[in-house]
Amino acid sequence: MAATVSGQESAFLAACRREPGAHRPVWIMRQAGRYLPEYRALRAKVDFEALTRTPELAAEVTLQPLRRFPLDAAILFSDIMTPLQGMGIELSFEPAPVVREPIRTLAQVEALPALAAARDVPFVLESIRLVRAGLPRGVPLIGFAGAPFTLLCYLVCGRPSKEFGAARAFLYSQPDTAQRLLGCLADAMAEYLAAQATAGAQALMLFESWAGLLAPREYAQFALPAVRRTAAALRRLGVPLIYYVNQGATLLPAVAQLDVDVVGVDWRSPLSQVRRIVGPDKAVQGNLDPAALFAPPGDLRRHVAAVLEEAGSAPGHIFNLGHGIWPDTDPDAVARLVDQVHERG
Amino acid sequence: MAATVSGQESAFLAACRREPGAHRPVWIMRQAGRYLPEYRALRAKVDFEALTRTPELAAEVTLQPLRRFPLDAAILFSDIMTPLQGMGIELSFEPAPVVREPIRTLAQVEALPALAAARDVPFVLESIRLVRAGLPRGVPLIGFAGAPFTLLCYLVCGRPSKEFGAARAFLYSQPDTAQRLLGCLADAMAEYLAAQATAGAQALMLFESWAGLLAPREYAQFALPAVRRTAAALRRLGVPLIYYVNQGATLLPAVAQLDVDVVGVDWRSPLSQVRRIVGPDKAVQGNLDPAALFAPPGDLRRHVAAVLEEAGSAPGHIFNLGHGIWPDTDPDAVARLVDQVHERG
Repeated sequence: MAATVSGQESAFLAACRREPGAHRPVWIMRQAGRYLPEYRALRAKVDFEALTRTPELAAEVTLQPLRRFPLDAAILFSDIMTPLQGMGIELSFEPAPVVREPIRTLAQVEALPALAAARDVPFVLESIRLVRAGLPRGVPLIGFAGAPFTLLCYLVCGRPSKEFGAARAFLYSQPDTAQRLLGCLADAMAEYLAAQATAGAQALMLFESWAGLLAPREYAQFALPAVRRTAAALRRLGVPLIYYVNQGATLLPAVAQLDVDVVGVDWRSPLSQVRRIVGPDKAVQGNLDPAALFAPPGDLRRHVAAVLEEAGSAPGHIFNLGHGIWPDTDPDAVARLVDQVHERG
Repeated sequence: MAATVSGQESAFLAACRREPGAHRPVWIMRQAGRYLPEYRALRAKVDFEALTRTPELAAEVTLQPLRRFPLDAAILFSDIMTPLQGMGIELSFEPAPVVREPIRTLAQVEALPALAAARDVPFVLESIRLVRAGLPRGVPLIGFAGAPFTLLCYLVCGRPSKEFGAARAFLYSQPDTAQRLLGCLADAMAEYLAAQATAGAQALMLFESWAGLLAPREYAQFALPAVRRTAAALRRLGVPLIYYVNQGATLLPAVAQLDVDVVGVDWRSPLSQVRRIVGPDKAVQGNLDPAALFAPPGDLRRHVAAVLEEAGSAPGHIFNLGHGIWPDTDPDAVARLVDQVHERG
């Protein structure tokens, strides 16, 4: 029953629980977005932030890829910085998030309020209710948040950067303040994700986009305890929890200790190794190189087959890209990918 | 004798050959550069490209850090794109290299001429001769080049990018043309490095800054054979060869197959694991997180000690950062780092 959605079995939820499903489930990181002409048409009229804050539009964008492709899950269209706006952080999307006053001091951390999702980001919860009403039977909705260290990267640096140097220097130069900030973010994301589940999200995902900038020692000291704190608060919900860690090959032994249902990985860690490291109690998600979608159709088939082979035939694999889809990807390549996973997986 | 420089034993060359030395050698990736006030003073008067093309100035900048710190090696001040300019690639430094006409077609690859270092980049060879004349006894000079795949990233993308998406898509969409380009670059870098050794460079280093963007399969298919081709051409010289691979945790089993003397790694791969994977026939170089130089002095001591402990006491470790030093680093932190490595290593 846990793996059914509206009375129909969900291959995605079954895989989250490492149960056999009717087929290999597949969805695409940032499956709603700029590679779709219908998304670009909407964005020509409405800016990114308005899309995330207007439930009807956020729901429309969330559902767009489901109309094109027989995907096994939907993921809410939103941004990892949205709940921080709700906590009073002033930021703009250019289109990447830019924080007006980067956080660098203990006083700034202490001034951060707790998040109350229903009060601070009601439009997110309303978007979830609208998506649920519009989703095809058997397709569950994934809610999501940024993992605490990844959010810290944006808050401390102010804008995305290749190396997030200021954030990493912050950990080394002000470790106690960094821990305070991570704790605050861990609690806020627990509240945020719990509210998403209450509103109707059937799985929850934490995006750890930048922990791969940390050595294993600093990951274990800073990022990991914060994720553990968020995850612990969510266990009582009984909703599958996915932790995606980008560029995390050397962090996986630590990730294996986390109480999450699914570990998502980037394209650089072969899935057979990931399965071996995280152990039989976790499902895995991934991990085709987004660049592979630029291969000729015959080559793409070989690349998809290689990921399926690495994942093996045991239950508990959700097919996905290893990172977000690129805006210049051909939607026809996505269609071929989804079909092939369903045929062969 | 191989490990002596001007009659004085070199701890650096001894470590390259996994022989015991008087102390643990240390040098710093991009040790000549923007974190030094004396470099910034020179750059206020001369642009980056002129520095690289004027032997007296390139030699002066190369020697600047040696006057401040008791480093165990010097590395030529230059840029990995400099030999490509010599091959007729038009580019500017803004300050990162920007290629005027990115390479995307087989016709462009076929039109690339071979490099003849003495004809095309004589100023590099003259810089090496001047540096050698000015170096303290016992301090060898490292010559360097970009590894073929890393150069391909810049040539195909045109400018640095976080993900070098166009370069990765190029491998997938035009694999044969990519192999042609890599072969051409491998030969050019072999010629370039051999000429540097003839001019006086006592060790040679290949910088593989971006192979960490590849999955192991694509690394083995594209980047690795090209490095092997360059390395094979250099073996007859009897000069130690260092291969630095950034973000390469999942690539190390393939790197272990290369015939190089030293494997340099970034800060994310613990050195004990690196030693285990690359085996006893290679020295290792690295790998303090450049961000650790922002820690208070007491903490920095702990971080340096942790790298030394990971490296172990067997010969064949060259202390370095895991990536280039950041421009806003305090030179006093570098002084403390170098002293501590010499005291404790």
